Amino acid sequence: MSSVLVTYYSRTGNTKEMAEHVAKGAEQAGGDVKLASVDRVDASELAGYDAIIVGSPTYYGSMAAEVKELIDKSVQLHGKLTDRVGAAFASSAHVGGGNETTALDLIHAFLIHGMVVPGIHDGDHYGPVSVGEPDSRVRKQCEQLGDRVVELAAKLAQ
Amino acid sequence: MSSVLVTYYSRTGNTKEMAEHVAKGAEQAGGDVKLASVDRVDASELAGYDAIIVGSPTYYGSMAAEVKELIDKSVQLHGKLTDRVGAAFASSAHVGGGNETTALDLIHAFLIHGMVVPGIHDGDHYGPVSVGEPDSRVRKQCEQLGDRVVELAAKLAQ
Amino acid sequence: MSSVLVTYYSRTGNTKEMAEHVAKGAEQAGGDVKLASVDRVDASELAGYDAIIVGSPTYYGSMAAEVKELIDKSVQLHGKLTDRVGAAFASSAHVGGGNETTALDLIHAFLIHGMVVPGIHDGDHYGPVSVGEPDSRVRKQCEQLGDRVVELAAKLAQ
Amino acid sequence: MSSVLVTYYSRTGNTKEMAEHVAKGAEQAGGDVKLASVDRVDASELAGYDAIIVGSPTYYGSMAAEVKELIDKSVQLHGKLTDRVGAAFASSAHVGGGNETTALDLIHAFLIHGMVVPGIHDGDHYGPVSVGEPDSRVRKQCEQLGDRVVELAAKLAQ
Repeated sequence: MSSVLVTYYSRTGNTKEMAEHVAKGAEQAGGDVKLASVDRVDASELAGYDAIIVGSPTYYGSMAAEVKELIDKSVQLHGKLTDRVGAAFASSAHVGGGNETTALDLIHAFLIHGMVVPGIHDGDHYGPVSVGEPDSRVRKQCEQLGDRVVELAAKLAQ
Repeated sequence: MSSVLVTYYSRTGNTKEMAEHVAKGAEQAGGDVKLASVDRVDASELAGYDAIIVGSPTYYGSMAAEVKELIDKSVQLHGKLTDRVGAAFASSAHVGGGNETTALDLIHAFLIHGMVVPGIHDGDHYGPVSVGEPDSRVRKQCEQLGDRVVELAAKLAQ
Repeated sequence: MSSVLVTYYSRTGNTKEMAEHVAKGAEQAGGDVKLASVDRVDASELAGYDAIIVGSPTYYGSMAAEVKELIDKSVQLHGKLTDRVGAAFASSAHVGGGNETTALDLIHAFLIHGMVVPGIHDGDHYGPVSVGEPDSRVRKQCEQLGDRVVELAAKLAQ
Repeated sequence: MSSVLVTYYSRTGNTKEMAEHVAKGAEQAGGDVKLASVDRVDASELAGYDAIIVGSPTYYGSMAAEVKELIDKSVQLHGKLTDRVGAAFASSAHVGGGNETTALDLIHAFLIHGMVVPGIHDGDHYGPVSVGEPDSRVRKQCEQLGDRVVELAAKLAQ
């Protein structure tokens, strides 16, 4: 059973709602899921998960400072997250408003940790992005992301 | 009067339509505009414009190889495009499908040429992106981009 | 006379040293320069400058959370920084260690603010990057960046 | 035994030399490796490999048009590369010259194909980058990349 952390920062509730759907998808795929906002996650605990999925609103084309703070603090674990699965999701106010670059910034952080990042061939390719409130398309993509990450984590844990 | 090249690659016609609206906006702002598909632009002529606006469909997260070929050939002018204005636009099949990274790849090329790139605070931030056929929102953004580029080129030519 | 803010975050002193050289270049070009670490800059004052140059160490492929916090708070000025000049610089521990993506994340923020970003055709293209302590190459590039930004700001202020 | 394609484009020989070291690392890890320049790879054969590693020189911040052409043609296989491993390497003339964005553009393409991308915690994080001719540091990183990709492909094939 793969352990998965789904963590997010949310002011409007959009990213939180996305996180809930990601967590739902991960649970349905058999994952042991912890869902928590970033302020309730201590960087030291990150090595305790097989997979880490992080969501952020888009603030000026990248993740919220609150999320970046957690990422920065994760340096204490550098080298200990190798081969864990990393994935991202993002919300934004507008199409073309920086949601892709936000998801990618999270992916960059995962790659730098030596984590393994799965792509998505039939959806938002760098991770689900919601323009405004998550609609049925976004909710479905979030669930699929949770599912995909759990499957990949299971393979890597073999 | 600023001279502006609007060039694009288009298979479905979506990027071409965006280009036409960019050209329209640039003309309405007083620009002397050439609109041409990339196969009809010779890299050697790029230094003849005050501003260069390039549009591409999104293929696997970056510009079409046909557009990249023009960019690659522009190396013959390296150093001669400094302080010219560069801007980008992109079409894609899906939200989150790589349109931002496509526009940004074009912007990277402009920056490497020492060109000057204007941002957009009230629209698609890295350049207009159309998901599928350009709708009225996209058409308006394309016209605004043409306008913004001509205004900036005029200031830089002073 | 163009007013320029050079702001940075630095733990090791490398990014601070880069900032000092950027400031020196901007002053030599005739700029009215304020040099300050990000914790001494209030977001509300950003609109008081013709140009803003931001430097950050590379933490997991993007700017330090402390820098991002200032960027996030700048939303209070959204729309008021249009046509100001923005530029970036970054330090990192390693080549290929995320310094380009750090500089680009800052550039993304400037573009989203509608600012104008100059490229560099004969140096580190997205902004000076130092791998470890700034050497003479980096120091020269930092001075050139300050110079280039002041010149561009002067043109835009006409 | 994992099958691995290492493909590259090279004019100066630098990227080719990197490719040879990536191939060597992959072979030493037990991979069944094909090493070929992009003009000798047909997009239709890509689905025949467990892992695809692509290298490119940096031209204006992204991969050479010749490499992009292969990526664009790979659309014929869309959906058939899911869960294969993808990795990138890049050469460039200068530090800060666009090598990270080149490697990342390749990674974007892999993610859009639904492939799985491994990060590197103790080297060039988005893939080995060589500034000029590959030195011993770069050659070692290339070999480690080949090794890492074969190990990951083996896990995913279980």
